Amino acid sequence: MTAEKSLKVALLGCGTVGAQVARILLEDAAALADRSGAALELTGIAVRNTASERDVQLPAELFTTDANSLIDQADVVIELLGGLHPAGDYIARALKRGASVITGNKALIAAQGAQLNQLAAEHGAQLRYEAAVAGAIPILRPIADSLAGDHITKVMGIVNGTTNFILDAMDSTGAAFDDVLAQAQALGYAEADPTADVGGHDAAAKAAILASLAFHTTVSSDQVHTEGITEVSAQDVAAAAEAGYVIKLLAIAEHAEAGVSVRVYPSLIKRSHPLASVRGAFNAVFVEAENAGDLMFYGAGAGGNPTASAVMGDVVAVARQLAAGAGLPNGSADQPVNLLDFEQITTSYWIGLSVKDQPGVLASIAAVFGEHGVSIESMSQHSDADGEGSALRILTHRGAEAALRTTVDAVAALDAVHSVTSVMRVEGN
Amino acid sequence: MTAEKSLKVALLGCGTVGAQVARILLEDAAALADRSGAALELTGIAVRNTASERDVQLPAELFTTDANSLIDQADVVIELLGGLHPAGDYIARALKRGASVITGNKALIAAQGAQLNQLAAEHGAQLRYEAAVAGAIPILRPIADSLAGDHITKVMGIVNGTTNFILDAMDSTGAAFDDVLAQAQALGYAEADPTADVGGHDAAAKAAILASLAFHTTVSSDQVHTEGITEVSAQDVAAAAEAGYVIKLLAIAEHAEAGVSVRVYPSLIKRSHPLASVRGAFNAVFVEAENAGDLMFYGAGAGGNPTASAVMGDVVAVARQLAAGAGLPNGSADQPVNLLDFEQITTSYWIGLSVKDQPGVLASIAAVFGEHGVSIESMSQHSDADGEGSALRILTHRGAEAALRTTVDAVAALDAVHSVTSVMRVEGN
Repeated sequence: MTAEKSLKVALLGCGTVGAQVARILLEDAAALADRSGAALELTGIAVRNTASERDVQLPAELFTTDANSLIDQADVVIELLGGLHPAGDYIARALKRGASVITGNKALIAAQGAQLNQLAAEHGAQLRYEAAVAGAIPILRPIADSLAGDHITKVMGIVNGTTNFILDAMDSTGAAFDDVLAQAQALGYAEADPTADVGGHDAAAKAAILASLAFHTTVSSDQVHTEGITEVSAQDVAAAAEAGYVIKLLAIAEHAEAGVSVRVYPSLIKRSHPLASVRGAFNAVFVEAENAGDLMFYGAGAGGNPTASAVMGDVVAVARQLAAGAGLPNGSADQPVNLLDFEQITTSYWIGLSVKDQPGVLASIAAVFGEHGVSIESMSQHSDADGEGSALRILTHRGAEAALRTTVDAVAALDAVHSVTSVMRVEGN
Repeated sequence: MTAEKSLKVALLGCGTVGAQVARILLEDAAALADRSGAALELTGIAVRNTASERDVQLPAELFTTDANSLIDQADVVIELLGGLHPAGDYIARALKRGASVITGNKALIAAQGAQLNQLAAEHGAQLRYEAAVAGAIPILRPIADSLAGDHITKVMGIVNGTTNFILDAMDSTGAAFDDVLAQAQALGYAEADPTADVGGHDAAAKAAILASLAFHTTVSSDQVHTEGITEVSAQDVAAAAEAGYVIKLLAIAEHAEAGVSVRVYPSLIKRSHPLASVRGAFNAVFVEAENAGDLMFYGAGAGGNPTASAVMGDVVAVARQLAAGAGLPNGSADQPVNLLDFEQITTSYWIGLSVKDQPGVLASIAAVFGEHGVSIESMSQHSDADGEGSALRILTHRGAEAALRTTVDAVAALDAVHSVTSVMRVEGN
């Protein structure tokens, strides 16, 4: 096929992903034109500093610091700068001109996705961001399109490679969090400042995007209850392993009868669950839908080439629509949903206690659970490592977060209890 | 959103999947209209015999035996009859009218997909068939759209639930093929006549569809080299397990430098490979792409509700385009590819031999491999169960199918070799 149309493509940013996107646009032009029905002409790459940010393998004349001029001549803008500013202004500028935008900017979409989608619709432009969640894994389009005739009830994702690498290494080597983090930093799997990853904030942005698409609504990242993995100890990991579980940082979006809940926390899942076998820095998203049942999408969650693949899939999709001169199909209308407070969610707790080694302790603890209406699924007792008492592990049945938390506080106040050594939630049962 | 447009939907067939599709169209009309931008009006359900095929939970007045009249008034036709005739005629009739078609008919698409796609394009109609491969799993759209900016190099799918159920049961219980097949039939996982499944023909149709989409070309099921699982013995399964492998029936579409190969056969894969953990009747498709790397899509491969979910995803996609009055985006142009003969593919063999227990046997066998240019990765020897000789297992490095086959023939002709007890290929290394 000879492409009749030509589309001007502006690239903003030339980091790990941007450089690969530029390479693919240049090297693979013929195949992309075949698949899009339009030639894709890379008109320029905007960077802040052409001297320091220019990729020497790409033609020097493509680089510019004038992003606005580039945007103002483009049919398609690919935003790979990251961060809220100036990325958000550039995207808005493009959409207002009717240019279509592809971005991998999870923070921006999680914060302003609804407004940007609205802006795109008003100006007949397309806005796509498959690369914002789970890198190369096609997950947003399957959720938004393939499952559009179904009802998604729950999404559970391992969507942060750094934390999965750390938890997996803790699980397989028995090492402590700090040691594994240092190793991950040395290997390039974790940033020098790892807060966004290990604090769960990166996963929270992705959870917000997943929830918005899965439930046809708008959830922003500040509405996501977020707990990171910094408190997960080698003892927790070992005890979980002994009980047949593995600890994963999960981004969860759930549509229960009472309402929608979106949350990120380290969670125990059974070894037999498909998410349990996601190793290293890989990502996976597990989806439960009323008719489809259980689905899982697995792949590389980060990296220049994988993320560039997701960006290019969006570029071809946008180009196909533009080449066909096609009007845009409707997206789903935004539905009002009842966003639950975190205290209202239903989950089950896995509680570690250090208790006195004396008669009647188990009975007094069990009594507290009973008083709060929380039922115990299993209880196991071992001698404490220091020999001063017993280590107790309690797995509850499902109950309201608020009741579970109150129960833990009441148990902690018992004379027979030295300390609460860990509290973690269990998912996927 | 109040849907302004209304689309007439004709359903052909009311079996397990059709009945669920009708139920969803009726029960979920409001949500579907919201998501599509058009009301979806089920105008009728065509069956061969309204007395015997009518689903009593659906309104009697919807049922008709006059499929053609239904088709001639429809905007959207959902074909769930299966088989080539009359399904193919109905679909062609609909497309020629410009009506869009959704089908789950893998046999028809694998045989006539190119012609039907052509017909759809000529008449400005849409043809979608996500449900034809791997039931509920969104796999065709990710391959055709999400990965359109990448180059897929290999697709390996567990796409037949019956054979995966059988092989998984053989692996976990040690039972023989015949016994597990009988059990699968009793449980409803296998048909009374299981030929299409255990012979690999169902998987071959799906392999043809996957290859066509992944490589932007046309492959029909008669071009797929197909071997079933009827020869897989309990001994094979046990020996594979001992060596750290599991046997799966794989549908493989590969784009190597020399050309494209599409094939179905039982294959050993390492226990650590993501496909190895696909249990029971579940399906999964593993995709390797140049930039995206390794991806896997996992879920229910059959059943009324899961398959209906895939059908309804296509229905909403079609309706969105129609509601927006949008022209159709271009698909990829068909690329000519060099379809390799099966003898030209590259794979590695896992060979079971029963040999005489005498000095020099290993040397004579190894010499035959050397003469044929096939190198051995590993060799292990055990006493035969009947004590009359040794059982030898040889894993080769990758080589051409033709060379591997010739080598096996030459080894079989050696005096020291009683028999070749099994030959199986190894994938995913």
